[in-house]
Amino acid sequence: MSMIEDKKTRIIFFGDSITQAGVKPGGYIQLMQDMLKAKKMDDKYELMGAGIGGNKIYDLYLRMEDDVLAKKPDVVVVWVGVNDVWHKASYGTGTDADKFERFYNAVVKKLQANNIKVYLTTPSTIGEKTDNSNQQDGDLNHYSNIIRKVATQNNCGLIDLRKEFLAYNIKNNTANKESGILTIDRVHLNEAGNRFVAEKMMEVVSKN
Amino acid sequence: MSMIEDKKTRIIFFGDSITQAGVKPGGYIQLMQDMLKAKKMDDKYELMGAGIGGNKIYDLYLRMEDDVLAKKPDVVVVWVGVNDVWHKASYGTGTDADKFERFYNAVVKKLQANNIKVYLTTPSTIGEKTDNSNQQDGDLNHYSNIIRKVATQNNCGLIDLRKEFLAYNIKNNTANKESGILTIDRVHLNEAGNRFVAEKMMEVVSKN
Amino acid sequence: MSMIEDKKTRIIFFGDSITQAGVKPGGYIQLMQDMLKAKKMDDKYELMGAGIGGNKIYDLYLRMEDDVLAKKPDVVVVWVGVNDVWHKASYGTGTDADKFERFYNAVVKKLQANNIKVYLTTPSTIGEKTDNSNQQDGDLNHYSNIIRKVATQNNCGLIDLRKEFLAYNIKNNTANKESGILTIDRVHLNEAGNRFVAEKMMEVVSKN
Amino acid sequence: MSMIEDKKTRIIFFGDSITQAGVKPGGYIQLMQDMLKAKKMDDKYELMGAGIGGNKIYDLYLRMEDDVLAKKPDVVVVWVGVNDVWHKASYGTGTDADKFERFYNAVVKKLQANNIKVYLTTPSTIGEKTDNSNQQDGDLNHYSNIIRKVATQNNCGLIDLRKEFLAYNIKNNTANKESGILTIDRVHLNEAGNRFVAEKMMEVVSKN
Repeated sequence: MSMIEDKKTRIIFFGDSITQAGVKPGGYIQLMQDMLKAKKMDDKYELMGAGIGGNKIYDLYLRMEDDVLAKKPDVVVVWVGVNDVWHKASYGTGTDADKFERFYNAVVKKLQANNIKVYLTTPSTIGEKTDNSNQQDGDLNHYSNIIRKVATQNNCGLIDLRKEFLAYNIKNNTANKESGILTIDRVHLNEAGNRFVAEKMMEVVSKN
Repeated sequence: MSMIEDKKTRIIFFGDSITQAGVKPGGYIQLMQDMLKAKKMDDKYELMGAGIGGNKIYDLYLRMEDDVLAKKPDVVVVWVGVNDVWHKASYGTGTDADKFERFYNAVVKKLQANNIKVYLTTPSTIGEKTDNSNQQDGDLNHYSNIIRKVATQNNCGLIDLRKEFLAYNIKNNTANKESGILTIDRVHLNEAGNRFVAEKMMEVVSKN
Repeated sequence: MSMIEDKKTRIIFFGDSITQAGVKPGGYIQLMQDMLKAKKMDDKYELMGAGIGGNKIYDLYLRMEDDVLAKKPDVVVVWVGVNDVWHKASYGTGTDADKFERFYNAVVKKLQANNIKVYLTTPSTIGEKTDNSNQQDGDLNHYSNIIRKVATQNNCGLIDLRKEFLAYNIKNNTANKESGILTIDRVHLNEAGNRFVAEKMMEVVSKN
Repeated sequence: MSMIEDKKTRIIFFGDSITQAGVKPGGYIQLMQDMLKAKKMDDKYELMGAGIGGNKIYDLYLRMEDDVLAKKPDVVVVWVGVNDVWHKASYGTGTDADKFERFYNAVVKKLQANNIKVYLTTPSTIGEKTDNSNQQDGDLNHYSNIIRKVATQNNCGLIDLRKEFLAYNIKNNTANKESGILTIDRVHLNEAGNRFVAEKMMEVVSKN
């Protein structure tokens, strides 16, 4: 590795299918790469995706050695929670709230023990309706509260995507639609969603 | 049956375990009976409970002939929905939203075809937290929207318990507790809850 | 309708996605049609599919007037149960066993009250492994027991597909595979499966 | 600690509510203690229970440091799996089969890395019917297959309770009852069940 490369800040985005799609053309990580290039900052940062579809917090826990620690990042952004809630209804294998917190804490503490700066995000949406009538809204709010607590307790940065998505939808989803505002299918990001997330995530870059 | 009895307006409360408990001492139906007595109106109304624990909308549909129509009520108050939502997580046998609407409509139409005046209620709570972080909040809001639509479409009276409970909790549950304000266990009514419901339900009596 | 057509025995296959696919080219109902043609019996029978994807027993109940009774069949073959069991895990909206029995009985009795001869089938498979280790095996066996009881109690013919599929798999699925023997995906019929079912169903034709 | 005590072989039973009840009077661990006493072998073995109600494999994983390793046992008997399967239907938070295997392997390997001899057991029953029509039979068989594989791969002893319970029930539960043979409630052991398990588990003692 050259000395110039050594100076790059390596940021890994660690998550589920949303993050897996983030590295594809038009994906939020790819868009951040483009933003960095436009600002001529792409020699300073290296962005990597580590997203796998269907992942829950304990999947991240089980694969963090291989997929994150082995790559020696400076910063890790964790975006997880949708499947922990969603799989309750779709497979019967969601994550208990108290176990979610325990595994989430274990992930954060292990990253920090490796001198990695950690940012947490709240799970954006399963459904974009703004009147709190998406099936998983209550549970997503509950798990988001847990993540906010974990962030505070461990002095992590927080990108509160759930709050940001709702605020955006209240303005832009006046028809109370299920999807099509920031998502294609209630969960995964459309073009506007990828742009929206990229902008929010750039805050991580700007501070590191 | 005496002529005086014949003049009584017969009101049946048709529902699940919450209504089943309503006829017990301290239950909301019993409290209404006491209120009527205090107002010397108990010769004008006959209140009957037809609640069975665990019932979902299609249970009401299956037993409405025997438990309601056979008793020739003048008014029926339907209070159902908690188990349709809750049993998704606790047994895997909740009710699909579209089937909920179809069976609910079938119940209402059959009652009306028997010249019964029908009142609908929205499902109050599964958890009393006020920040929309109770697990089933999203789904309960969704099913409440369906009930409101069914009420409008069929010109039924509506007692919007979900809205009323939330408003009460926002004032009285400032600690954001799960239960203990209007319920004993997030779902079933405590003393304050029975009183609260009895007062709301008296509106049905006063209009009939 | 001509007099000759009037003499045809009309058989309706009433079910879920498996039956919906049965009318497509290569589907089991289409294959039966071909068999009848080869035997020059196609002027005696009219086969009709009434299958809709995702249907559970109460979906059949809700649409039987429009989709079956209105067509005045002589014979109805009911094939349902997979979704009643499967949707417990995949949506949280499976059907309670006791309600399954009640709605199933209601469907049978209403068909019989319209002078329709009724055949019942047991739900074939969700997974073709033969060591009783498919996730829903226990529940499918339970619901099959209920169907056998309903058939006996109401003097319906029974085509015991679950039993037949297992016997076939014990012979032909020695590698204990999940799918690929009679199904493409653990549930829906492949070519061999459609042929197998068509042959079993021809018994209904031969007796009517 | 005295020298005599130091020589005792310490066996920890690590599991869920079934094991939690095992240390109570009449519980299977208590019965084993009595058996050892009767054979005047109680100075050679120390039996300890480490069962907590509701535990799944990842609960064992999360608490194994504190509850097992800290106590420096010579032998550990792992009995888990019922809740991993059951909680799919009762909370929506069962354990995916592949994660079950991963966490189970992690538990075994960590125990072995601490020079502990490890015995595995298969989950006995959720329902004692013998015709494979208990709701979770398919899934319990699947998870039992996983445990048998983990035992083989890691050279662990295996006490195949699922197989043993079924064999016992085929002989003694000719009425095909759900419970009352070896369990009180389809899952937890009655008197006969505790005796039956104690006898099977004594095999572990006799080999160590």
